[in-house]
Amino acid sequence: MKLEGLSFVGFSRAKPAGKTVSAINPATGAALEPGYFWATADDVERAVQLAANAFQEYGRWPAKRRAAFLRRIAELIEANATAIQERANQETALPLARLQGETARTCGQLRLFASLIEEGWWLDARIDRGDPNRKPLPKPDLRSMLVPLGPVAVFSSSNFPLAFSVAGGDTASALAAGCPVIVKPHQGHLGTSEMVATLIQQAAREANAPEGVFSMLYGAGREVGIALVKHPLIKAVGFTGSRAGGRALMDAAAARPEPIPVYAEMGSINPVFILPGALQQDAEAIANGLHASVTLGVGQFCTNPGLVFVERSADADAFLQKLQSLISSTPPGTMLTADLCASYRSGLEKFARIPGVRCSTAGNGDPGAGKASAALFVTDVKTFLATPDLMEEVFGPSTLVVQCESRADMLKAAEKLEGQLTATVHGTPQDLDASSGLLAVLTTKAGRLVCNGFPTGVEVCHAMTHGGPYPATSDGRSTSVGTRAIERFARPVCYQNFPDAALPDELKESNPLGIWRLVDGKLTNKS
Amino acid sequence: MKLEGLSFVGFSRAKPAGKTVSAINPATGAALEPGYFWATADDVERAVQLAANAFQEYGRWPAKRRAAFLRRIAELIEANATAIQERANQETALPLARLQGETARTCGQLRLFASLIEEGWWLDARIDRGDPNRKPLPKPDLRSMLVPLGPVAVFSSSNFPLAFSVAGGDTASALAAGCPVIVKPHQGHLGTSEMVATLIQQAAREANAPEGVFSMLYGAGREVGIALVKHPLIKAVGFTGSRAGGRALMDAAAARPEPIPVYAEMGSINPVFILPGALQQDAEAIANGLHASVTLGVGQFCTNPGLVFVERSADADAFLQKLQSLISSTPPGTMLTADLCASYRSGLEKFARIPGVRCSTAGNGDPGAGKASAALFVTDVKTFLATPDLMEEVFGPSTLVVQCESRADMLKAAEKLEGQLTATVHGTPQDLDASSGLLAVLTTKAGRLVCNGFPTGVEVCHAMTHGGPYPATSDGRSTSVGTRAIERFARPVCYQNFPDAALPDELKESNPLGIWRLVDGKLTNKS
Repeated sequence: MKLEGLSFVGFSRAKPAGKTVSAINPATGAALEPGYFWATADDVERAVQLAANAFQEYGRWPAKRRAAFLRRIAELIEANATAIQERANQETALPLARLQGETARTCGQLRLFASLIEEGWWLDARIDRGDPNRKPLPKPDLRSMLVPLGPVAVFSSSNFPLAFSVAGGDTASALAAGCPVIVKPHQGHLGTSEMVATLIQQAAREANAPEGVFSMLYGAGREVGIALVKHPLIKAVGFTGSRAGGRALMDAAAARPEPIPVYAEMGSINPVFILPGALQQDAEAIANGLHASVTLGVGQFCTNPGLVFVERSADADAFLQKLQSLISSTPPGTMLTADLCASYRSGLEKFARIPGVRCSTAGNGDPGAGKASAALFVTDVKTFLATPDLMEEVFGPSTLVVQCESRADMLKAAEKLEGQLTATVHGTPQDLDASSGLLAVLTTKAGRLVCNGFPTGVEVCHAMTHGGPYPATSDGRSTSVGTRAIERFARPVCYQNFPDAALPDELKESNPLGIWRLVDGKLTNKS
Repeated sequence: MKLEGLSFVGFSRAKPAGKTVSAINPATGAALEPGYFWATADDVERAVQLAANAFQEYGRWPAKRRAAFLRRIAELIEANATAIQERANQETALPLARLQGETARTCGQLRLFASLIEEGWWLDARIDRGDPNRKPLPKPDLRSMLVPLGPVAVFSSSNFPLAFSVAGGDTASALAAGCPVIVKPHQGHLGTSEMVATLIQQAAREANAPEGVFSMLYGAGREVGIALVKHPLIKAVGFTGSRAGGRALMDAAAARPEPIPVYAEMGSINPVFILPGALQQDAEAIANGLHASVTLGVGQFCTNPGLVFVERSADADAFLQKLQSLISSTPPGTMLTADLCASYRSGLEKFARIPGVRCSTAGNGDPGAGKASAALFVTDVKTFLATPDLMEEVFGPSTLVVQCESRADMLKAAEKLEGQLTATVHGTPQDLDASSGLLAVLTTKAGRLVCNGFPTGVEVCHAMTHGGPYPATSDGRSTSVGTRAIERFARPVCYQNFPDAALPDELKESNPLGIWRLVDGKLTNKS
């Protein structure tokens, strides 16, 4: 695959002057060629204007044409997968096998949205036929469906250089909805981002898409990012990253003359509640599964289980001992960036300094530059309830086990939790039966409840919710994974008494696209 | 119907001391008994705590039980309709016939939501069955559906003392979703609000609903209103009113430690585009229809058409002349409150002072205290495009006709518009064919497009969108009328690998409720 030029801002590939920034290999600390120019305020303006122009045409493309565009992006990524994965491996230290899986996920996601928009049911098309003879007033003919919002700014994540990045879930769902996209890529994988962006633009050219349907702007969050969010022609924002970063975008969007929705996925500590029956049944298997989930990908998942509740018992002691031995013998892993590694280490230090919290895996020595050692902290429920700092996410391969005195303690701790992406319960049928109160509380706290499993591994499908109440996300009514993600970028429009010829195909009386619609209150895919 | 006590704040009916406020009869200016005590900060705290407690039980009521509660509210309102309408007539000067229609609408709305939740398709239940043999990783079983957000604060409107008030669309849709409601009623109809709130509480008692499922707090927007929106246990807000009021709530909600959604319907000028073919066909009928829509209910509708575009022609002159004569001969009408009347008059004065705008119906003399005369303003497109003030809503029976030189002018004006609840086009099939650009622009500007009709009259049904981009509403992805309104108060929760017995009935494998669900990507109401 050919890399064109040193700079890639969607439309402008050469800068006369200015500072360049390079990607860093986190395993070696070495800078990776080439250097990239940061976008200027003019670049932002031009990208947004082009996106707004493109929306006028792209927003009205038939679903079939958008679907073909998405599928072509997937094909091009697959055709260039080896080069992309190699570069991503250099930039993120993620192993090739993981990056291969992520490539498949990214392409699967693009194709899932392609099928979704062809099927059309997501549009929530509704028809209430008129009745001119109704008394006292005639009943109008009303037909409504979802339409795209307009240009979307996407901020890609550090930890999924493909599936939550340039051609990731936010981009795929926004393009599927009919919205042009401007990506601000994460600094952690600048080269990977360029390669994927180049392919999206190739697919756009092949599809004769209007210029500006997809752009990418390198730059710092504070400058390029906030400028994008504040631009009056941007109509929605997708973001995956830190709480501070997400909140800054939320605040900027809310303060606009015309506020716009921000869908920020800001992470979570993903509490796990292990009930006594489950512990009694197989404490060792739960410890094994938990360890694998905590340390998967050097703990760099938003769904990493950072908090575990057990009731004190001999089974719980055995569980803890097993978990401790597994964590202690975990080899250190290279983190995605030096910044993340530094944050992880300072997070561990902060936990270790809290009275009543002990690090049962401390003293493993220096893991080496850029590397993180897995860590296990243990505390009692009283300390946990009294220490808000213990509810903060430590992004990396660590977890905190809270020893409870009773089931009532567990419930109290659950009630105290902030919003989460996931909450997990391990229990026998009897445990679950006796814990309806706990399950009810967790339903109000999380977007996904996991039973007798672990929260890492987010299936891309129709039923997935990768969301949850604030601060897990900016908007607990949404998901950033799965087909429901497309709804974030659409709004309903209603047509009253329009002649059939002037209606979109989706709402025409004969149902030419054969989609599912709610007609006079009944779901049907007939006319 | 018996009015209990002087004060009604849901739970506390007597205050030891403090200022009381009375409703005013806008037709006479006289205060109406009784006086009402304003809620204190303690009252707000107590109402919200009760609502949060109530949510734990009410949020889990089966749909059937919630439906019966909603239907009982409708029955009680009907049983007490005469007294309610009489009081509402005294407080708002709206004629009894209109209030009878509004009663029917209010009760119909409650029953529509009752049926909706029994049918269950709105829950968007989705099931993706697992596959333990999938390679490389087993596929989990994932099931998701919408669940209620929690306690909702509702700010009722001035102009619909029943259908957008205490038991109006916001309350009905929030209670239907499973959310407790706290209403801050509008000052314009304090007694009507008390009567309806008393009935909701009676229905709640009869249903053995937990205390706090419904409360009402009298008070000023700045104190009681903002305190409600800022309370950490309130999870969403519904509002119908002014842009300033709605924006204040939006800003307060966005600045919370945990931001929450605000659904504010803030009004609109509802542009009407009359294309040449339609004018040629029947200028007089369009003038008649427009006049009726502008002056309906003394112009006090959010969907009142305040802006009309025509191309200059002999037909347009005939239309304008007819409209002018109709508006000039309209008798003055009493407005809902003295404040609204004063705002209307100052709005007219502001328009009349703008150079290039003429009031073609001025000089009708003083309409009398509390009354508004209908008004017609005329300007040219150049003045319109250069004068942002002309895009502000004047709430009352006035409209502004903009004379365009060409179809291109019309398009330019459409592009300049802010977000609207509705946009209307009058045209022959040929007109519409030649105006796809205009229709495309209007689709991005409004929640509802009306063809060869008028925007007043908002049908309560599945397909309705009573929403639209900011500033028409705070959130163009939502509607405050029709069954889609319930989605505002819910979020998706996903259950992973749960045993059937621990799942909500809506997601159980056998589909015991027989609702429509998306099972492995296919819509079905079977198991």
